[in-house]
Order: sequence, then C-alpha cells, then structure tokens
Amino acid sequence: MARPRRSDDTRQLLVEEGAAGFLANGYHGTGIKQILDKVGVPKGSFYNYFDSKESFGRAIIDHHSLCVQRNLTEAFGAATDPVSGLRAFFGRLMDDFVEAEFTGGCLIANLGGELEGSEVLRESLSAAWGAWRDRVAEQVKAAQRQGQIRSDIDAVDLADLLLESWEGAVIKMKIDRTLDPLRKCLDRLLGDYFRP
Amino acid sequence: MARPRRSDDTRQLLVEEGAAGFLANGYHGTGIKQILDKVGVPKGSFYNYFDSKESFGRAIIDHHSLCVQRNLTEAFGAATDPVSGLRAFFGRLMDDFVEAEFTGGCLIANLGGELEGSEVLRESLSAAWGAWRDRVAEQVKAAQRQGQIRSDIDAVDLADLLLESWEGAVIKMKIDRTLDPLRKCLDRLLGDYFRP
Repeated sequence: MARPRRSDDTRQLLVEEGAAGFLANGYHGTGIKQILDKVGVPKGSFYNYFDSKESFGRAIIDHHSLCVQRNLTEAFGAATDPVSGLRAFFGRLMDDFVEAEFTGGCLIANLGGELEGSEVLRESLSAAWGAWRDRVAEQVKAAQRQGQIRSDIDAVDLADLLLESWEGAVIKMKIDRTLDPLRKCLDRLLGDYFRP
Repeated sequence: MARPRRSDDTRQLLVEEGAAGFLANGYHGTGIKQILDKVGVPKGSFYNYFDSKESFGRAIIDHHSLCVQRNLTEAFGAATDPVSGLRAFFGRLMDDFVEAEFTGGCLIANLGGELEGSEVLRESLSAAWGAWRDRVAEQVKAAQRQGQIRSDIDAVDLADLLLESWEGAVIKMKIDRTLDPLRKCLDRLLGDYFRP
C-alpha cells in the first residue's frame, strides 16, 4: 500500500503543478480544478491549503523565486570566476528552454505582463525579481573587483540592464521559437558592453 | 435618433475594446461577453465579426501593430534627427504609461509571455514585433549614417537589443510601478552603449 501523503507534500505538489500550469497557460488560463485533478486532490479540499487563487499564486511565485535562488547558488558556486558563473546560470536557463521547445519562458515576466489588479501578486513578483537582481548585482560586483567587468558603471545598473534585456529576449524567444535573442543578448552585454 | 452603426464600425469598436481588455487582463482573463457588453452588441452576433476568440485575438494584435507603426511614423517624422525620433517615440510610450499609472504595459510582450499553443497568435505576435523592429532598425541605420550612433555594430542587432531591453524594462515598470527602468534603459543604451 502506498504511504498516505502528508498534507505539506500535497501542498508542495499543488504548488509545483500550479507553477507548470501558470507557465504554460498564464494565471487566468489555468483552472484550479485542472491542477487539483492532476495532483489527485478532491475539489473541495483546495481551501485546506490556500485561502484563494491569489494566495495560491503567491505561493507559486515564492516557490519559483526559491528555485531561481537555488539555481544561482549552484551555478555561481561551481564556476571558476564570476563571469563564468553568470554565463553558467543563463546557460542552464537556455538548456531548460531548449528542452521545453521554447515554450513557457520565465514565470516572473509572464505573470508581470499578464497580471493587473492584485497588489499581493504584484508585490510577490517585485520581491522575486528584486531578489534575483540583487544576487546578480553581487556577482557583477565580484566580477568588477576581479577586473572582468567594467567598474565605471554601478553593478546594480548593469544587473538591471542584463536582467531586463534577458527577460525581453526570453519573450522574443517564445514568439520566434529560437535561442538567438538570448545568445545575442549575452554577447552584446557580457561579451561587449560590460567588458573593462 | 442615433444613426445605426455600420458593421465595420462595430467590428472596429470590438477590436479597440478587446485591445484594452487584453492589455488590462490578458487574453485568458478577458471574456468575450464583457467586450460585447461594453460595445453594446448582443452575444449571439460575435460570430458575425470573428470566427473565434483566436481570430479576434489576431485582429487585436494586427490593430495594435498598426497603432505602433503610426506612432513610429509620427514620432520619427516630427523629429529633427534620427536619435531624437527614437527618443520621441519612447517618450510617447512613457507618457502613455504614466497616464495609465503604470498598468497595462505592452500588449505584444504581455501576450508573448502569456500565450502558448496558438500558432496563429504566435505568428501575429512575431510579425508585429518584427515590423516594429524593422522600423527601429531603419532609424538606427539613419542615425549611423549621420554619425549619431556607432557604426561598428549592425543596426539590426542594436535595434534588437534596444527593443528587448525596453520590453523587459516595461515589465519591470509594471511590477515596480515606476518609469525608472525605462529611463535607465534608454540612458544606458541610446545615451551610452550606442554612442559613436
């Protein structure tokens, strides 16, 4: 007999399935019922885990943000220098995009584009993007100290430009079904503008 | 007595109301019924104008693309030099964003992030972005000829970087409710990296 699932396992499964749904079909295009069906949870028990679709959305954004932080830690930790760490992080994302055949893209940017009217979700998105930006800015600063990136522009400004360009390029990737915008974005910025 | 609306007036009103709806609530978050109600069209007659929600979406993207083209023509036409034309175009967009209190953003990027699964809509988005990029690349090329923008990087590559950075910055603007990302994007690129 299968071991009964503990409640927090189920909550986590709902969040993971919800993240996949939101990434594929957006917030409004994802029905709670289809998520519950996939996880095998009866419809009535959704409210045992979340107060509302909005609080479910917040849990999904927070979960996504933790995944990004873990990816950053792994990519930066394994690299021999700061710029290689940045390239490794974006390289992992590109591998994921190829595997998904250029669908999905970035949950934060997709929801940032789609959602209006929820302060709770807007604040979660802002916190997730901010946490990502801060880690990248730290890495840019480390690269500046080692002479890998120009030091005459503030690391936070460079990190903002890099991540905003990346996010725009991810949307272009989704529309055109090719990695080209992502490769060119990194070449133009990390490979040229950011050089000392 | 009010003059009866001609059929193509009604179609245009549906497209304009639909564009506003999609911008505020996304494709999946916008119901056909709410659009019909706003325009004052009975529910059953939607299919007199469009085959499906997808073909309605295509008409909205095409309409938005024509608006962008008109804005480009006006901004570039009124400017005394190519870079001023680019700045005027983005300046108009920023004025619109302030007026909308940083909601909405860019329809093409929002739908590009949200939509999966419709080749028809993906191709419309690709065509709209491509037409925009081509006009901006022409303007960059004109600026290169006049020595306003560096000529050692292809104009199309610069236009891609500018528009992708802009689109990412628009999403950041929506999330953080401030023009700062947009101003910084233009300062870093037009005001620095693109300079001869």
